[in-house]
Amino acid sequence: MAAPAPNKFDPDFTPQVLDSFGPATNPRAKVVLSSLIKHIHDFAREVELTTEEWMMGVQFLNSIGQISTPKRNEGHRICDVIGLESLVDEIANKVIIDSGEVPTSTTILGPFWSPNAPWRQIGGSIIQDPHNGQVTKMHGRVVDVITQKPLKNAVVDIWQASSNGKYDFQDPEGQSDNNLRGKFRTDANGEYWFYCLKPTPYSLPTDGPAGVLLDVMDRSPWRPAHIHLMITHEDYRTVVNQIYPRNDPYLGIDSVFAVKNDLVVDFVPLQGDKHAELSMEYNIRLAPKLLRSNPMIDPAKHKI
Amino acid sequence: MAAPAPNKFDPDFTPQVLDSFGPATNPRAKVVLSSLIKHIHDFAREVELTTEEWMMGVQFLNSIGQISTPKRNEGHRICDVIGLESLVDEIANKVIIDSGEVPTSTTILGPFWSPNAPWRQIGGSIIQDPHNGQVTKMHGRVVDVITQKPLKNAVVDIWQASSNGKYDFQDPEGQSDNNLRGKFRTDANGEYWFYCLKPTPYSLPTDGPAGVLLDVMDRSPWRPAHIHLMITHEDYRTVVNQIYPRNDPYLGIDSVFAVKNDLVVDFVPLQGDKHAELSMEYNIRLAPKLLRSNPMIDPAKHKI
Repeated sequence: MAAPAPNKFDPDFTPQVLDSFGPATNPRAKVVLSSLIKHIHDFAREVELTTEEWMMGVQFLNSIGQISTPKRNEGHRICDVIGLESLVDEIANKVIIDSGEVPTSTTILGPFWSPNAPWRQIGGSIIQDPHNGQVTKMHGRVVDVITQKPLKNAVVDIWQASSNGKYDFQDPEGQSDNNLRGKFRTDANGEYWFYCLKPTPYSLPTDGPAGVLLDVMDRSPWRPAHIHLMITHEDYRTVVNQIYPRNDPYLGIDSVFAVKNDLVVDFVPLQGDKHAELSMEYNIRLAPKLLRSNPMIDPAKHKI
Repeated sequence: MAAPAPNKFDPDFTPQVLDSFGPATNPRAKVVLSSLIKHIHDFAREVELTTEEWMMGVQFLNSIGQISTPKRNEGHRICDVIGLESLVDEIANKVIIDSGEVPTSTTILGPFWSPNAPWRQIGGSIIQDPHNGQVTKMHGRVVDVITQKPLKNAVVDIWQASSNGKYDFQDPEGQSDNNLRGKFRTDANGEYWFYCLKPTPYSLPTDGPAGVLLDVMDRSPWRPAHIHLMITHEDYRTVVNQIYPRNDPYLGIDSVFAVKNDLVVDFVPLQGDKHAELSMEYNIRLAPKLLRSNPMIDPAKHKI
């Protein structure tokens, strides 16, 4: 790609726009918007954006909000498709520990988490409705990443799509509320276990701007099969992530760039359990809350 | 502003996203989208965008399309407020002539041009409806910027808001179709003259996302008073611009960054014309079509 050629166009134009902030602007808003405007101008100059291309961009921009509803957040999805949510997650949540231990990776939340998932008993099931999937006993231990001490009363909040690739509240075929959602507490040994489904891959909706963008980029709209997790503990940093079956055909081409190596897990045959045909072990390493995220981040920048 | 610190975050993430284009992507689309995605990622890293800030951005993005209608293009307006339309105009239309002559400046089209403006006779008026403005006799000559030869049959297409700051098709008080719009042809001496209004400043609509953005930036939503012009001739490059009364209080703080020095004009008292109380001379220098815009632009980049 050509490097920007600052002499080609009026060198005073972008500074004039950046100089237009009034004195009452919030300082953090000024930092964020100045950088955004500067990058948009640099982009336009770098590619020598034409009037027709800009107008296509305006139409695309308007189309994002026009298809969005309280149950469909296309702006969020567009950010996912260009990797922005994944990048924001890294910026906010990457933890580097001087002594070298590596906590469980985080990845994007996505638009389907619900604050209303029910508490369920350890050993219970999140499966309420009929399905065509493979029932799996998921189990593991939550530990302190530094001391390896098991963590009692950690909360494992899980949500997943059904075998048709739809979450409860978006399924036109109808699922009961909180089907395939649940919150579990780890026991005195830091352990949890419950029944869920081996997840099924699904495609992002392609009938809106995200589909247009993926098509222009000649990319697959499919996500690898995944189970969503949010692991919390009062003394530890929250981990939001997703785990993926090894050998999923979409692992290398996830349409939202949310796969990391330590999030790939094994589903293996299970004998002697009448409730499940597969077993999957997933252990979680949490970092103490006192460790702030990426230690090179300057907290002063984030005061609003 | 801090320079980007490439080592702070995973250096492989943006390349992974840029590597996701499939082989069937249009080459120009790949150039444009790669640059846009790279700049958005660089922006997020540079300001260490937080999850909350990103989510505010998603809501803002969705709100742009949600308020847009066939008569209200908020995406276009947001681009104007950050100077993007003005920059795209410069990229597309800046003409540099080796021998040093300077053609009349272009500036942004804005959302109120109409392809249906009526042809009117030289010496006629574009004023159809009652108003509280000052009638002005606008006159001038259209010439070749290099030879100074007057140009016969150049078309001067003019549109302006009424004295209430509204254009015909957006005025809730109702204006007749094509009030304050008209197209005129220059005569054998390259001259044109007609009656219009001394323009009135007006504010951008502040009830939508553009108003939110201007408020966050602590900026005025006002535009200086202006008359829109589109000057065309079959052998010359089209000039789209706006002209502004000298001493307008908003000249230095135009909310859409569309003022250039050679677009500021003088309205002077007119004696002996029963139709008008002011006179305003505006001469126009057109560049031959063969001169392409900014000669440093690489036309190969623009093949779609």
